[in-house]
Amino acid sequence: MQGVDGAWLPPGAFRAIGARRTLIRGSGPLVDTLHRDTADACERFGGRVDREASPGPYALVLELTGSDASEAFTFERQGGRTSVTASGAAGLLYGFFHVVRLGEEAFTGTRARRTHRPAVPLRMLDHWDNVAVHPVMGQVERGYAGGSLFWRDGRARADLLPRVSAYARLLASCGINAVAVNNVNVHAAEARLLTDRIGEVAALAREFRAYGIRTHLSVSFAAPVVLGGLATADPLDPGVRTWWAEAVARVYREIPDFGGFVVKADSEGQPGPFAYGRSHTDGANLLAEALRPYGGTVHWRAFVYNHHQDWRDRGTDRARAAYDHFVPLDGEFAPNAVLQVKHGPMDFQVREPVSPLIGAMPGTRLAVELQATQEYTGQQRHVCWLGPMWSEVLRFRPEDRGSVGELASGGLVAVANTGDDPYWTGHPLAQANLYTFGRLAWRPDADVSVILDDWIRLTFGAEPEVAAGVRAVLDGSWRTYEKYTAPLGVGFMVQPGHHYGPGVDGYEYSPWGTYHFADRDGVGVDRSAATGTGFAGQYADRWAEAYESPGTCPDELLLFFHHVPYGHVLGSGRTVIQHIYDTHFEGVEEVEEARRVWASLAGSVEPGRHARVAELFEEQVRCAREWRDQINSYFLRKSGVPDARGRIVY
Amino acid sequence: MQGVDGAWLPPGAFRAIGARRTLIRGSGPLVDTLHRDTADACERFGGRVDREASPGPYALVLELTGSDASEAFTFERQGGRTSVTASGAAGLLYGFFHVVRLGEEAFTGTRARRTHRPAVPLRMLDHWDNVAVHPVMGQVERGYAGGSLFWRDGRARADLLPRVSAYARLLASCGINAVAVNNVNVHAAEARLLTDRIGEVAALAREFRAYGIRTHLSVSFAAPVVLGGLATADPLDPGVRTWWAEAVARVYREIPDFGGFVVKADSEGQPGPFAYGRSHTDGANLLAEALRPYGGTVHWRAFVYNHHQDWRDRGTDRARAAYDHFVPLDGEFAPNAVLQVKHGPMDFQVREPVSPLIGAMPGTRLAVELQATQEYTGQQRHVCWLGPMWSEVLRFRPEDRGSVGELASGGLVAVANTGDDPYWTGHPLAQANLYTFGRLAWRPDADVSVILDDWIRLTFGAEPEVAAGVRAVLDGSWRTYEKYTAPLGVGFMVQPGHHYGPGVDGYEYSPWGTYHFADRDGVGVDRSAATGTGFAGQYADRWAEAYESPGTCPDELLLFFHHVPYGHVLGSGRTVIQHIYDTHFEGVEEVEEARRVWASLAGSVEPGRHARVAELFEEQVRCAREWRDQINSYFLRKSGVPDARGRIVY
Repeated sequence: MQGVDGAWLPPGAFRAIGARRTLIRGSGPLVDTLHRDTADACERFGGRVDREASPGPYALVLELTGSDASEAFTFERQGGRTSVTASGAAGLLYGFFHVVRLGEEAFTGTRARRTHRPAVPLRMLDHWDNVAVHPVMGQVERGYAGGSLFWRDGRARADLLPRVSAYARLLASCGINAVAVNNVNVHAAEARLLTDRIGEVAALAREFRAYGIRTHLSVSFAAPVVLGGLATADPLDPGVRTWWAEAVARVYREIPDFGGFVVKADSEGQPGPFAYGRSHTDGANLLAEALRPYGGTVHWRAFVYNHHQDWRDRGTDRARAAYDHFVPLDGEFAPNAVLQVKHGPMDFQVREPVSPLIGAMPGTRLAVELQATQEYTGQQRHVCWLGPMWSEVLRFRPEDRGSVGELASGGLVAVANTGDDPYWTGHPLAQANLYTFGRLAWRPDADVSVILDDWIRLTFGAEPEVAAGVRAVLDGSWRTYEKYTAPLGVGFMVQPGHHYGPGVDGYEYSPWGTYHFADRDGVGVDRSAATGTGFAGQYADRWAEAYESPGTCPDELLLFFHHVPYGHVLGSGRTVIQHIYDTHFEGVEEVEEARRVWASLAGSVEPGRHARVAELFEEQVRCAREWRDQINSYFLRKSGVPDARGRIVY
Repeated sequence: MQGVDGAWLPPGAFRAIGARRTLIRGSGPLVDTLHRDTADACERFGGRVDREASPGPYALVLELTGSDASEAFTFERQGGRTSVTASGAAGLLYGFFHVVRLGEEAFTGTRARRTHRPAVPLRMLDHWDNVAVHPVMGQVERGYAGGSLFWRDGRARADLLPRVSAYARLLASCGINAVAVNNVNVHAAEARLLTDRIGEVAALAREFRAYGIRTHLSVSFAAPVVLGGLATADPLDPGVRTWWAEAVARVYREIPDFGGFVVKADSEGQPGPFAYGRSHTDGANLLAEALRPYGGTVHWRAFVYNHHQDWRDRGTDRARAAYDHFVPLDGEFAPNAVLQVKHGPMDFQVREPVSPLIGAMPGTRLAVELQATQEYTGQQRHVCWLGPMWSEVLRFRPEDRGSVGELASGGLVAVANTGDDPYWTGHPLAQANLYTFGRLAWRPDADVSVILDDWIRLTFGAEPEVAAGVRAVLDGSWRTYEKYTAPLGVGFMVQPGHHYGPGVDGYEYSPWGTYHFADRDGVGVDRSAATGTGFAGQYADRWAEAYESPGTCPDELLLFFHHVPYGHVLGSGRTVIQHIYDTHFEGVEEVEEARRVWASLAGSVEPGRHARVAELFEEQVRCAREWRDQINSYFLRKSGVPDARGRIVY
């Protein structure tokens, strides 16, 4: 088969190529892949593909000119012929998908020779898939797209290998080149993927490899103890080093292009080097050393904080934790150790400042982690296209050296939002997040509205009214979601545990370090250097100064950085309390409008997909109203300040 | 074996009888039971038991003088001989346990002839045990004592039949004569107990029967559809009536003394007659009709309310629901239909008024339901002896006809707090609740402090310092629990779902009808007739008048009936807000003191039991502090009224 059902590569997406004559020059597994996909398309649409030139004109020539590891390709259209050349097979594959994306446009007019190359070398998806069903977190931790594509009830899903192949095609088509196949929380069954169950990982790696994607594994720092029977996992213990070296050797025997490890250590209960009085560089470098001979990388997550905080203790600030832990270690990580940093200092809230860590470790390779799975942004029951948020983050310049996208020399990573759902992502429109992530990872300064248009065209076709409707539904959906949930950067206010739906005080008296401190006079967290936790001082001067004062702090982050009276006047001219009231009504109205627009597309969108989204909109409207009413009643009861328009249920 | 390990009938409790000569006159299964238990005791303690008189004096004569169904017995001690006579075998059994309870006292001095008879004919435990593990509620719904004594993972526990026999002995020893062996929420596996799995119920019934306990079953109102394959469960449908008649006939073939059914209908998602446009009397009488030929009873629960309430709707009051639903049906229930009413109008909170339904249905047999399992009172991790609360409830006189204990002509029922835990109830001291329930059900006007002393003596022996210590720990524990949790009758404020630990707004914006309406000015629910939901008007005049006004409403129920300003002065002279602050500090101090007292008993209490309670006290202290601090910080932030003693973390 060619195409990927249910997603942005329906068979029709290959029509422009499949209906023409294509010549593919070069050899190797990736060239075989794109030849097979082209041949499949030709079989369906009546074209032809050759690997040796024969007489007659070719509409498309794909040519591998070398054998290097470059992912770049050169595209041009001259004299009625479209050509893609690349010195590396991966580049040719990306060039092929570039042609697919352009469709008929790739075969009209003239296009000057242009070389495309990814700005970020590692573009990775991290699956939080468990092998065994976790009693609380289930098969996929924070998964909203059905079961896992890889695992079910403790076993590998051999039944889904063809679907994994289609998945690999889907990922390659938007530029993703690395996948971690298991959850960063590594439980007992998952730990064994590293050793006696490595064959199951190898089977997945075969499918991904055919599309230029390297496979990575989340491992437990305690593996030498848990799996190896050693008495310690101390990173400086010679036996431990030997154990890891041998374990890695076995992995590479099964998976020669294995990408490396992802490690969540000393975080939310996972084991780590702290238990042995060692540093995180000791821990990361231990694994880096084992991986180095084979070209592997360790992704060491910077998500380390005290998750047993006493809510009574206002001196501790979780937002500070990553910086406090890791900045002192700058320059000490091995070259093939990457510090993987969440884009914000907390945990994937709908609005956070950029993590100050990202600008503060010039001597360390950083990867920046985004969350495609919508844990805090509607859980794939709400439409929430995250492109604009990610774009803002990636364009943000923590300091003069460059933007976040430029500073992410260790790669861009997203937590996957995919599963065995027929539409891959539960909510069919959540695919746009996956696609956007891939394209942004290729080019972090790309215009996300163009990316969105591409996804819509590929998925829904080129009919202008349909495209306009889908765009209207998605385009502002992140800001809409922000409007009806936690206001002004304050974060959380969700139901504990599952994190769906409003719970204003849900995390207010908890050990998780996630507070809003609302009282009868005001709301927000004072993170200033002068009177607060000092978090604002972790930024380079320009941002430290801007965030330090309520007068210069951007409105949308005000309550992240400051505790202000309800009557505080925002840059917008509204008071904080009236802003809360108004945005919550606006947010619901915008969801209702989006639902109306989607309803108008009935008949123009594949019926199953239309019905699924229509049904989810009912839930989104219900839930948005619940958010609006709980937040507004909560603040009305607490502040006593009436809504200027008198709309709120007391 | 005699005695019951881990509980209030250790083998030593039978010493006084077992060391003497006993004559047992009469025949039948219950007489065989008490003969066997006496013989076991004699074997251990060197006494002797005869069934035919032989020469020499008898210290104890137990004589069955008739064959009726009476549960009364006559006890006397004259001329150095203790005698128990009864015209019914059950009475003789209770007389036997009366002697056990008295111990050596039963054999000293002279005691005038006195006849004891239960004030309440049905003294029942309802187990909320599931047969199959429920994905959310587990093996035992709201169970805090390990697994079920009856079921595990979908199967009957044949392994525990000897333990069920010991359990029956334990229950009979405090006067319980009926047990429902499965949860009122009847899921798929449980439904089949009525039909093809009735043999498993019969096996339990055999063990209970030997101790005079009848077995009851919770059934699904939808059984004719779910099990019988009928198209309807409409109570007026002739086919449905026939189905129930045949089902009941089959039950009685297996269990000739079967007690009857317990039904939760049209409640929290369970099916019921409303689906067919029929009334609850239609539903209850359908089952009563089927049970009548065999002397069975249907217990129809009055726990019917809207659990999809919109929190924005202040006109709906869950407290009103049982009265509103059932009072219009008074006089229409069949004679063998019992309406089973929770003692309070809400749901087993630490403090509620008595349900107004209890005084308002003179033409209906009512059973009053208490909750021994500590869902809302510390979940058997906290010491909370409920005797004083139950005693208050049972002595309360809703109107002139009598007290709650007297109005409960259909029986007293407790939701069981037992499981397969070695101490039967998880927290070893929670046994006191089970024992107290049995004794109160026998005699609702009994002095609970005497009952507590009996339980302590039976369980811990007669050593005065130990007894005084255990009494100090238990005696005021309910009021202590009340002090550190939801104040002044307002209820809830727990974590949603599992109901453990504080969550002030946990149920504030929920569909469950459980609100406190705290705002910056005040707190509480206006249930007055004049300005509130009208609930206060459901009571007979005397109570309606008392509850109607904040000035006459008892302090401890103030926030149940009224929304008052934080500065409102209580009958105690304290303001509401200072009362909240003070009682929360007092409650924690009392728990700390109880922990200290318990620690002082080390060496005087069986080590395993001492350690278990000591460990649980650590959790109780931790949790009580959490309650104190969350409640106090919440109200300080909201009210802005400082604590007069400045103790509260903001």
